[in-house]
Amino acid sequence: MRTRAAVAVEAGKPLEIMEVNLEGPKFGEVLVEIKATGICHTDEFTLSGADPEGLFPAILGHEGAGVVVEVGPGVTSLKPGDHVIPLYTPECRNCPSCLSQKTNLCTSIRSTQGQGVMPDGTSRFSMLDGTPILHYMGCSTFSNYTVLPEIALAKVRDDAPFDKICYIGCGVTTGIGAVINTAKVEIGAKAVVFGLGGIGLNVIQGLKLAGADMIIGVDLNNSKKEWGERFGMTHFVNPSEIDGDIVPYLVNMTKTPFDQIGGADYTFDCTGNVKVMRQALEACHRGWGQSIVIGVAPAGAEIQTRPFQLVTGRVWKGSAFGGARGRTDVPKIVDWYMDGKIQIDPMITHLLKLEDINKGFDLMKSGESIRSVVVF
Amino acid sequence: MRTRAAVAVEAGKPLEIMEVNLEGPKFGEVLVEIKATGICHTDEFTLSGADPEGLFPAILGHEGAGVVVEVGPGVTSLKPGDHVIPLYTPECRNCPSCLSQKTNLCTSIRSTQGQGVMPDGTSRFSMLDGTPILHYMGCSTFSNYTVLPEIALAKVRDDAPFDKICYIGCGVTTGIGAVINTAKVEIGAKAVVFGLGGIGLNVIQGLKLAGADMIIGVDLNNSKKEWGERFGMTHFVNPSEIDGDIVPYLVNMTKTPFDQIGGADYTFDCTGNVKVMRQALEACHRGWGQSIVIGVAPAGAEIQTRPFQLVTGRVWKGSAFGGARGRTDVPKIVDWYMDGKIQIDPMITHLLKLEDINKGFDLMKSGESIRSVVVF
Ligand SMILES: [Zn+2]
Ligand SMILES: [Zn+2]
Ligand SMILES: [Zn+2]
Ligand SMILES: [Zn+2]
Repeated sequence: MRTRAAVAVEAGKPLEIMEVNLEGPKFGEVLVEIKATGICHTDEFTLSGADPEGLFPAILGHEGAGVVVEVGPGVTSLKPGDHVIPLYTPECRNCPSCLSQKTNLCTSIRSTQGQGVMPDGTSRFSMLDGTPILHYMGCSTFSNYTVLPEIALAKVRDDAPFDKICYIGCGVTTGIGAVINTAKVEIGAKAVVFGLGGIGLNVIQGLKLAGADMIIGVDLNNSKKEWGERFGMTHFVNPSEIDGDIVPYLVNMTKTPFDQIGGADYTFDCTGNVKVMRQALEACHRGWGQSIVIGVAPAGAEIQTRPFQLVTGRVWKGSAFGGARGRTDVPKIVDWYMDGKIQIDPMITHLLKLEDINKGFDLMKSGESIRSVVVF
Repeated sequence: MRTRAAVAVEAGKPLEIMEVNLEGPKFGEVLVEIKATGICHTDEFTLSGADPEGLFPAILGHEGAGVVVEVGPGVTSLKPGDHVIPLYTPECRNCPSCLSQKTNLCTSIRSTQGQGVMPDGTSRFSMLDGTPILHYMGCSTFSNYTVLPEIALAKVRDDAPFDKICYIGCGVTTGIGAVINTAKVEIGAKAVVFGLGGIGLNVIQGLKLAGADMIIGVDLNNSKKEWGERFGMTHFVNPSEIDGDIVPYLVNMTKTPFDQIGGADYTFDCTGNVKVMRQALEACHRGWGQSIVIGVAPAGAEIQTRPFQLVTGRVWKGSAFGGARGRTDVPKIVDWYMDGKIQIDPMITHLLKLEDINKGFDLMKSGESIRSVVVF
């Protein structure tokens, strides 16, 4: 079949909207009509050429929602008409990682996914002249129709709006999941969130959901204060407006009359800046504070600290896709949204047509949008 | 009173054996006759001048065992004749850290301890000419008699030999505790121990106690192979005798027919070398491997890695005094030793008189001893 898609023809160039060929689903695969897709920093990271593992030409996009059109042979858990969210972190439930019960990082199709192809080693997309086009993060949601492995699709309820729940395919789950699954934040905790973009705001609403007492947001942009407060932030710090180093400043903020040591129980880096990751670790409480790295650092960048920080009880962790098992957890998060336990609507600041997808990248880069969503 | 002690007069000089003055115990303090004391790398770190927080003159030593001689006013949990192990990490059971139930790093007397004085801000030791001599890590076990706060003494059974259980005051608890309290290793785990000195050997016997399946020891010195095996090591790797980098080598060793990802469930750095700490993290299994820093790094040294290591599920932690709550856990470890669950005797390679204490430092630096113990 043919489908309309935004194609990343080469690094550093705008996406090109074009008709492309799409082969039908093979064994264990599913054809999905994408109804809406968010535009994420990770797409920009790849499109810009900064991602050393980026491959071209490819159809980017990994934050979508849609409807199953056709299932290939061997597919048992999905049927045409099912509403689904594509998963860049699949959940096969059979690999050593899934069976460990200790990680969400399913490894069953990791290598082919990284090469931009389906598990059989080939791509379903091609240019009209026959040139193959690669898949991206196993999703390629910047196409009106796309093919995914069955294990990379979460079946969700039918009454949830596509242009909102697509965001659960990446940012919402990444932020809320880092709080719930990775940090396992408890009621009464004190937390600091570095970087109040989309991920940071979702960390904040995760912290509110978890019952944290103190939710400190840190951002260089004062306009983020109002955004943070909308989702549960209790304190805002602009590092450029304080005297001295942010670490002792935050440690002081978290002291109590009883506890004069200070430091956060949990900190979250949502900036991707390795210097900030260090501050996030060091702002943790001596003895037990945990710092969770969520942001994606530039290629080659390294985090650094004195080992004394760890020996005195701070823990350095990371979180990918919020530690969520996609097929199991994503449908629950959709329910939480439909039940009003979490908010998504205010974060979807821009709705665009596929033709205007490059404008969505501009809005993201300028910081004007929290999330732009392309509606097909 | 007067007591005989080995005094660190200044950095870089041998200890000097001399008579010193010792004031009796003040409120909340206890006078202890030290019967035996181990010589530890931390004493050497301070004596050498490498420790930027080292203060002189001081009476070093923090790995002792002895008998209570006299208790000061307000002391309720100890009486003359009780057998005790001094604790450089006290357990007050009342500070924010103790009450958190999340750390063993009691902070009630941290600042005075760091300054080499008792909680009232003064020292009990002085030269015969009246010059004050500082305490060390709140213990000063290189003195035949010493004064400690009540909260820094673990009461232990009377039938345990001083010249063995003194080692529980530091190395044994640090190693075994890192496995049990910090890493919480489970039956069947695969682990790697970097550095097979005293701490590393105690990590190994902790792993055996915890039921680990694969206990890989890593050391540049082949003579450590036999030592490791004596305590439960199942595999030995000398990094200088393998082709290429140690990280993929270890990852390969831990692969199974089912799990072709590989990597250790737990790794322990007992070297204090920040490059090794990085290898220890990166040899962890993707998704869940935890690396525990135990070794003390040189002043100013920093650990470093790509944040991707954390985002893909590895956890970087540290352990001090094995995460043990001294007054609660040390008596249990003494019981384990007396019950034959753990070994100490083979690790005590040299018994010395106080006069020969500098020889103990030489044996440690040359790697000839696992542990030298001074018996009074
Ligand atoms: Zn994303
Ligand atoms: Zn899997
Ligand atoms: Zn020690
Ligand atoms: Zn305490």
